[in-house]
Amino acid sequence: MKNPMTLPRRHMLAGSAAALSALGLAGWTGVARAQAAAAPKPLPGYAGWKSANALIVHSGSTLETRRAAFGTSVITPSGQLYVRNNLPAPDAAILENRDAWSVAIEGVKSPRTLTLAELKTLGLETVATVLQCSGNGRGFFPSKPSGTPWTVGAAGCVVWSGVPLRAVVAALGGLADGMAYVTGTGGEKLPEGVDPLSVLVERSVPLKAMDDAILAWEMNGEPLPLAHGGPLRLVVPGYQGVNNIKYVKRVAFTPAQSQARIMQHGYRMSPPGTKASPDQPSVWEMTVKSWINGPLPEQGPLKAGVAQVHGVAFGGTHPVKGVEVSVDGGKTWQAAQLVGPDLGRFAWRQFVLPVRLGAGTHVLASRATDTAGNVQAEQREENVGGYNNTSWSDHAVTVTVA
Amino acid sequence: MKNPMTLPRRHMLAGSAAALSALGLAGWTGVARAQAAAAPKPLPGYAGWKSANALIVHSGSTLETRRAAFGTSVITPSGQLYVRNNLPAPDAAILENRDAWSVAIEGVKSPRTLTLAELKTLGLETVATVLQCSGNGRGFFPSKPSGTPWTVGAAGCVVWSGVPLRAVVAALGGLADGMAYVTGTGGEKLPEGVDPLSVLVERSVPLKAMDDAILAWEMNGEPLPLAHGGPLRLVVPGYQGVNNIKYVKRVAFTPAQSQARIMQHGYRMSPPGTKASPDQPSVWEMTVKSWINGPLPEQGPLKAGVAQVHGVAFGGTHPVKGVEVSVDGGKTWQAAQLVGPDLGRFAWRQFVLPVRLGAGTHVLASRATDTAGNVQAEQREENVGGYNNTSWSDHAVTVTVA
Repeated sequence: MKNPMTLPRRHMLAGSAAALSALGLAGWTGVARAQAAAAPKPLPGYAGWKSANALIVHSGSTLETRRAAFGTSVITPSGQLYVRNNLPAPDAAILENRDAWSVAIEGVKSPRTLTLAELKTLGLETVATVLQCSGNGRGFFPSKPSGTPWTVGAAGCVVWSGVPLRAVVAALGGLADGMAYVTGTGGEKLPEGVDPLSVLVERSVPLKAMDDAILAWEMNGEPLPLAHGGPLRLVVPGYQGVNNIKYVKRVAFTPAQSQARIMQHGYRMSPPGTKASPDQPSVWEMTVKSWINGPLPEQGPLKAGVAQVHGVAFGGTHPVKGVEVSVDGGKTWQAAQLVGPDLGRFAWRQFVLPVRLGAGTHVLASRATDTAGNVQAEQREENVGGYNNTSWSDHAVTVTVA
Repeated sequence: MKNPMTLPRRHMLAGSAAALSALGLAGWTGVARAQAAAAPKPLPGYAGWKSANALIVHSGSTLETRRAAFGTSVITPSGQLYVRNNLPAPDAAILENRDAWSVAIEGVKSPRTLTLAELKTLGLETVATVLQCSGNGRGFFPSKPSGTPWTVGAAGCVVWSGVPLRAVVAALGGLADGMAYVTGTGGEKLPEGVDPLSVLVERSVPLKAMDDAILAWEMNGEPLPLAHGGPLRLVVPGYQGVNNIKYVKRVAFTPAQSQARIMQHGYRMSPPGTKASPDQPSVWEMTVKSWINGPLPEQGPLKAGVAQVHGVAFGGTHPVKGVEVSVDGGKTWQAAQLVGPDLGRFAWRQFVLPVRLGAGTHVLASRATDTAGNVQAEQREENVGGYNNTSWSDHAVTVTVA
């Protein structure tokens, strides 16, 4: 097991201070941007076991996978997976007795607090999902929204293992009447002296998400690391990363959405010029998206001849139907081939298209379609927070052949 | 990237000395047994990046995954994957310029030496396979065959990415006439002063294996580590581990099997009391097998109540059709459920069956069936080398409920 190291005390204090000051200064997304402006940073202690060469350290709570590091093996290894924490990670001591971790289940006929050991008796499911920060692609917004300027690397394809949430609900007598949301609450330590609702990591997703959700204690074949929410995480397949609650302490079926700021005002698709408000759409289900991971300029000089253009494509809650590739910036398109194992509708697919590239400059783009008929859009949907950028144009890459 | 550390010089010399002495003393399988008799050892340098807690170090060239470490995520993370080297791993310097690695392709119409950079232009395929040492399960043979006494952990399920071998053959004009085998040659440094054929890692598999084989440069989303054959490995899906040639320097289509000792006399299914000889079956395709990875006695005390009995099942070149579980040592069986993504016919499947266990001792067993109708046997096939143990009886586990 790669046991995450204990967070050095100095780092922890710095992280808390930044989180606190952010509340007054720049809101939820200001911390990362401020920290990213500084020089390259080492991996933070709780993620010190990760592959430094594969990651861009934006800040102690925001690590991005390098585009060239994605490879073509479908799975994103844990050492290369991005990290985005809304609050500093809890102390690694919470992993010392994983089976003793407890989670309160509310909004069911027989509400109860269950330990991880008890959850393990209720069922077992394994699911591969794309885990993606809703701000992935924010770096392509010309409006430079506040928040980490991720390009493509705040995403990965991960195998989770745990108990189906519906099995937990069944074991506790079924849902109480009138519930419309699944509300998960994170177990982070809250900074003192502020309104808890202003910092609490608590998100609600529509009740239908329960059918696919799991309470996961394992990721990619290893006990869930602290950096990714261990010992227990609420995994909501097909939904943007923020809805996958780390260190989950409470899962409540509720008639209304959480009153936490991260739900009411954070992560809303606010049209340009507006302020975030609860009547705007929340970042829930992901939508169809793809991007190219090779060839890339940073992978070295390209020779004239055949290149295997490859990348990843996913459809949120819908499977990918197909991917097209363009080598002329979107003027013409050719169908790419889906390669490698199909890990199910929440996973991404690898695609590849061999193309002949002559001397000169080529703009490579990819465009995915899902089985519901949704086609990846050319343009991003402008919004204040820089969320959900699925623009194929923004994700195009320019390569030069000598 | 987790770059394997350079092998400390002291260790390298010790490894070479052991390999040399083994030739005179105990043949191919003596080294590991002799080393395993010593006290627990640290990870060898070339595998120093692996998860020590998840592995049993039999020797510097034989690392086994602990049964309790397999988890339920289908994929075996690289840090937990077993290692079995027939010769000491080459110097890590061979990874410094991966794209410059070259492999000679022979027995085709236009034989050529290709660099890894050139291979990358010829095609791209990703395949999940069970990688399993043919000696996995040897530790259950009462005859105590020479060689590492693996139980279940000389196996894993791995995602490989590379170029299909058939695409390479097509690019070189197709097969030359009369070829019956794919013969791969490893790039290990051979000890001096001995007949090269007595130590060369060179294996032949039937030509039909070409249809599925790939030349892989990536494993589980990362550049192929030295410990697993990087920069380039011949992966033969469905075939026992030894046929998946590491540091592959040559792939030849040949009319006959390699003359190397590891092919002619090593890895043969020699009946008890016989000497290994080329007329006995070689360890090629794997056969249907499964085992339980939980609950296990080493996972802590079991309480009376429901337990989720889980494990892995695979069929070599055939997909798994189903798995049965017994909680009474094989007297009665119940169909288990296959869970998690299906990574294709060469991968293993996770299975689970919830069972109610009362106080007392229970013998848990699993029995897999493949789509060709082959049923995992109760008894091992006795053989001198202790190969291919698929006995469900040998793999049963005994648990006690308080």
